[in-house]
Amino acid sequence: MARSLGELAAQFGCELIGDPAVTVTGVATLSSAGDAHISFFANRRYRDELRTTDAAAVILAHADAGDCPASALIADEPYLVYARVARELHPPPALTAGIHPSAVVAASAVVADSAEISANVTIGDHVRLGENVFVGPGVGVGPRCVVGDDTRLLANATLVQDVSTGARCIIHPGAVIGSDGFGNARSENGWIKVPQLGGVSIGNDVEIGANSTVDRGTSDDTLLEDGVRLDNLVHIGHNVRVGAHTAMAACAGVSGSTVIGKRCMLAGRAGVVGHVTICDDVVVGGATMISKDISKPGFYTGSFPGEADRKWKQKVAQFRRLGELADRVSNLERSAKGGDK
Amino acid sequence: MARSLGELAAQFGCELIGDPAVTVTGVATLSSAGDAHISFFANRRYRDELRTTDAAAVILAHADAGDCPASALIADEPYLVYARVARELHPPPALTAGIHPSAVVAASAVVADSAEISANVTIGDHVRLGENVFVGPGVGVGPRCVVGDDTRLLANATLVQDVSTGARCIIHPGAVIGSDGFGNARSENGWIKVPQLGGVSIGNDVEIGANSTVDRGTSDDTLLEDGVRLDNLVHIGHNVRVGAHTAMAACAGVSGSTVIGKRCMLAGRAGVVGHVTICDDVVVGGATMISKDISKPGFYTGSFPGEADRKWKQKVAQFRRLGELADRVSNLERSAKGGDK
Amino acid sequence: MARSLGELAAQFGCELIGDPAVTVTGVATLSSAGDAHISFFANRRYRDELRTTDAAAVILAHADAGDCPASALIADEPYLVYARVARELHPPPALTAGIHPSAVVAASAVVADSAEISANVTIGDHVRLGENVFVGPGVGVGPRCVVGDDTRLLANATLVQDVSTGARCIIHPGAVIGSDGFGNARSENGWIKVPQLGGVSIGNDVEIGANSTVDRGTSDDTLLEDGVRLDNLVHIGHNVRVGAHTAMAACAGVSGSTVIGKRCMLAGRAGVVGHVTICDDVVVGGATMISKDISKPGFYTGSFPGEADRKWKQKVAQFRRLGELADRVSNLERSAKGGDK
Repeated sequence: MARSLGELAAQFGCELIGDPAVTVTGVATLSSAGDAHISFFANRRYRDELRTTDAAAVILAHADAGDCPASALIADEPYLVYARVARELHPPPALTAGIHPSAVVAASAVVADSAEISANVTIGDHVRLGENVFVGPGVGVGPRCVVGDDTRLLANATLVQDVSTGARCIIHPGAVIGSDGFGNARSENGWIKVPQLGGVSIGNDVEIGANSTVDRGTSDDTLLEDGVRLDNLVHIGHNVRVGAHTAMAACAGVSGSTVIGKRCMLAGRAGVVGHVTICDDVVVGGATMISKDISKPGFYTGSFPGEADRKWKQKVAQFRRLGELADRVSNLERSAKGGDK
Repeated sequence: MARSLGELAAQFGCELIGDPAVTVTGVATLSSAGDAHISFFANRRYRDELRTTDAAAVILAHADAGDCPASALIADEPYLVYARVARELHPPPALTAGIHPSAVVAASAVVADSAEISANVTIGDHVRLGENVFVGPGVGVGPRCVVGDDTRLLANATLVQDVSTGARCIIHPGAVIGSDGFGNARSENGWIKVPQLGGVSIGNDVEIGANSTVDRGTSDDTLLEDGVRLDNLVHIGHNVRVGAHTAMAACAGVSGSTVIGKRCMLAGRAGVVGHVTICDDVVVGGATMISKDISKPGFYTGSFPGEADRKWKQKVAQFRRLGELADRVSNLERSAKGGDK
Repeated sequence: MARSLGELAAQFGCELIGDPAVTVTGVATLSSAGDAHISFFANRRYRDELRTTDAAAVILAHADAGDCPASALIADEPYLVYARVARELHPPPALTAGIHPSAVVAASAVVADSAEISANVTIGDHVRLGENVFVGPGVGVGPRCVVGDDTRLLANATLVQDVSTGARCIIHPGAVIGSDGFGNARSENGWIKVPQLGGVSIGNDVEIGANSTVDRGTSDDTLLEDGVRLDNLVHIGHNVRVGAHTAMAACAGVSGSTVIGKRCMLAGRAGVVGHVTICDDVVVGGATMISKDISKPGFYTGSFPGEADRKWKQKVAQFRRLGELADRVSNLERSAKGGDK
């Protein structure tokens, strides 16, 4: 899809430095862009790439325009404008409405005429699929699931049972939504499984990454509010509630019955134990484990950065002798007091 | 399924405070239960919910009965009794015996007449599926796998090859059992793959969570004994042995050739390195990495809880100067000794 | 496949201690091997098993030959020779060329006659599958993917779109290659998805483990060079480049736009943040998070081994009082200086 720089500047509210008649057909990185591309600059690590880019135009902040050899679209938030421009130039592919002959759809399921059901799909009893829903190859949608309009279930994803999604969600390949929560009661003869009777309730504009898992609730529903974004290999336990517009990077995990507020961000491999409450606007650093309630917005961390093994091992050895060091300081304090007498 | 409180009290050995003729039809949480539900109280965090519940009855310990506004089933282990009551009121759905026409079953496979094989399933050569086995949509069962009676393989799970399960197991959606172990020998020209020739041997009543992976052994079998419970996104390396009734929460991982004892518990994201031995009755805390043999039952940890970033960074900075601090203490000690002269 | 010890010694350049006419038909571990098996010894933990093995022969280093009760193949790198012997004795199963009738192959796809396409596979538009490619049950291969000769895509794996692989790769079950990168721009109304327009480019002899995920690039391709080995449940973010012969153990993760050098090794659960560069020949310890560029080859760590909970909690408490301890040392130093006056 081709757009002139003038059209893009007007549509997205940017100042344009350059020729408004120049046309671009796609986005590209600074280093790979050519004269039909528009790129962006938002991370100073890539300033050299900016200075040497062959892009037709670059979206960037006013302060960086001096380093730009091409036309410039000036924006306060270049990455956000880039996202919108990229969506304009690269809309998702259109659907081919209909049900592939190899798909198996239960008689009690209701599928909108505008939906596209791919090959080797299985749709269970009492499922409802809305307008323009896309169901990719090999997807399984189990009993009583409801999928909102314009939602996309990608290849080999599974909605196990009693999952409902809002509109415009994307469930990425291999994700499993609505699996049994990990409920086990200890008995003298081993674990007794606790039946998992709830579902998963997903709002609008939610995205769940490849091979992520969201368990259904024990009695009530596990809940992902509007605009939640989960990256790949994320785990959400049963009965968890994730507030609107919260994002979790890859390998993050939230244990059962925890409540996460709105607009939170969990970095990669962050984790939250079960049965705690995290307020709105909390950011959790990479590989950090949150083990208590958080009632104050802010940035929370608890992980050590890796370093040269020899230096790290020295520190760990000193850490192991911290008690001894504290005792030595106490002895010195006692001697000092004795000396004061 | 409806049961009177009198029947439940008698069946599960509880004292009943309330009317034995009252009937319940399902379980629910304290806060969502209505007058046809029975609930439970086992975590003091939820005492307010107990005091205001609309449930017909609550399963709880004797000491908590005073806070219960409804009928009470008194139990020493309320959660365990709840699990049993929930199973009584909510039995799993009955199977529909037979092989869906879209399923592909090898001629050499043997499938019990009572088994249910769903749509788009693929069953390989020399597979044997026992009585009342359920195979969900999109499941692949590879060569020479043997699945015990009443076992359930849920949607899009994969048994790669040479996997045997006992009776009453549940393999959750997307789980991969019997994949190649990570065996690579370094050569001058890169890694040489070591053929993985063993299988996976799984006992009775084992549950493996969504998108978890269990590799088959290099020569012998990887082994999960009776009653093992694995949550979602758990990794079990090749040649590992997991003792009976051991449970691992989400994102836990065990590297190759490690032996884990019976009745162990690994919390979320706990890990165990390869080639070590953990004795029976070991509990590993969340996000803890076990790197040596453990020969004494007990609770083991090694992770820091996250906290406000500024405070954490101060501590990390102090940690980095630990060597310097120890030197300063040594200097003080030397001066003090000098002063003693 | 049967081979004499004499043949194996000659083929793999080993000194043979024992009868060259003895024949072996397979490999096995020291403890399970019988008189038709060859085994290996490379980890001193298993010396007792060496001394009592019933194997016909053992591959080991010269220094260990005295402990071997069987014939011995002497090798400088016993594990490497074992890998080669195992491949010789246990070649992968031959393919059955052809497309299963239940597979759905787009008209625009090109599939080599020698390829084997299993049941319930879906092959999308403009896909090309090379000679002797194996596609397992339930696999989905999306638009424009290109799969090199002798590559194996195992059950329920997904190549989403625009993925190309070299020759002799193995994509294990449930792996998802080419999923959307986690690109989101924050707006006042929540996250705006950044279209992910690149692909994934995979070299020769690459192996990707079960349920691992490799996102495609935002504009350019995510890149895995020749000989890369990823274990299970590994995450590779968009735009990442992984150098040749780098290996990552289970649950490792690399965030977006990071560059990893050649011949690196990431142990289990190691992680690398986004937008950093790691040079060649770096080894990262288990559960270590790398948060900065590394420009010097070597071994890097940053994790604590788990220990008895009581002892660990004492250390954590001392760690939390490190600031106070440093203050006490400063006070002592001031007093000492004062005393010097």
